[in-house]
Amino acid sequence: MAKRVRRRSQPAEALKASAPVLRGRIWIDFRNVAAITEAGADLLEQIEATGSLSEAARRLRFSYRRAWLLLDAMNVRWPGALVTTAVGGKRGGGAKLTPRGRAVLSAYRDLQVQLETMLDHATEAFRRSVDAGGD
Amino acid sequence: MAKRVRRRSQPAEALKASAPVLRGRIWIDFRNVAAITEAGADLLEQIEATGSLSEAARRLRFSYRRAWLLLDAMNVRWPGALVTTAVGGKRGGGAKLTPRGRAVLSAYRDLQVQLETMLDHATEAFRRSVDAGGD
Repeated sequence: MAKRVRRRSQPAEALKASAPVLRGRIWIDFRNVAAITEAGADLLEQIEATGSLSEAARRLRFSYRRAWLLLDAMNVRWPGALVTTAVGGKRGGGAKLTPRGRAVLSAYRDLQVQLETMLDHATEAFRRSVDAGGD
Repeated sequence: MAKRVRRRSQPAEALKASAPVLRGRIWIDFRNVAAITEAGADLLEQIEATGSLSEAARRLRFSYRRAWLLLDAMNVRWPGALVTTAVGGKRGGGAKLTPRGRAVLSAYRDLQVQLETMLDHATEAFRRSVDAGGD
């Protein structure tokens, strides 16, 4: 199961923060093209949770088109599909992460945790060094 | 003097890399708005090198308008200007980093080095974990 990561993009405390806040984003390229991004990881996570691309899209407030294109890009760019989709069935098909899909999602979330830890540590050091250079 | 950072955005070796490459970007917010980004750091660095906003813009292939707006945003958002500009003089004015500007640029470059180190270490671990989950 992928870890939940505190999202730095809309933390409530940052809205009122008057001190600098370090932010970061990571993604993974194949041949210089993004093969997984934050949005892609969110989509994989919701497919894992719901078993359905359209339900995953709905939860993320992505259009179905956006979700489909994002998933297609990940499946094509990665050497081996991350998600398999089935046609038919009682809910009109479903979507399921492959073992590779689960491994990629889990590794991506681990990286995000590493990044957040680095940014948290660096924030204090940054504030100190910039205060020291204050004019 | 700010450190030169190998840019991950266009590394020649990645153009042919068939293995995943981890990428990342950091920025610094004040009140949830970016106060320095990679482009901003590049601009500060070129102002430091050339003493001129227009020359800095030319070297970065930014329009003068883009460079001016970027610098203005940094100066306004940061509590204390990063760059001072002079009117007149033999080259029609000049631009100069304040002590705070130099401290912010140096701290930002240090952060980029930390991020690159983390990504380099994580790339190998990521490749192993994803291979293990390969289908």
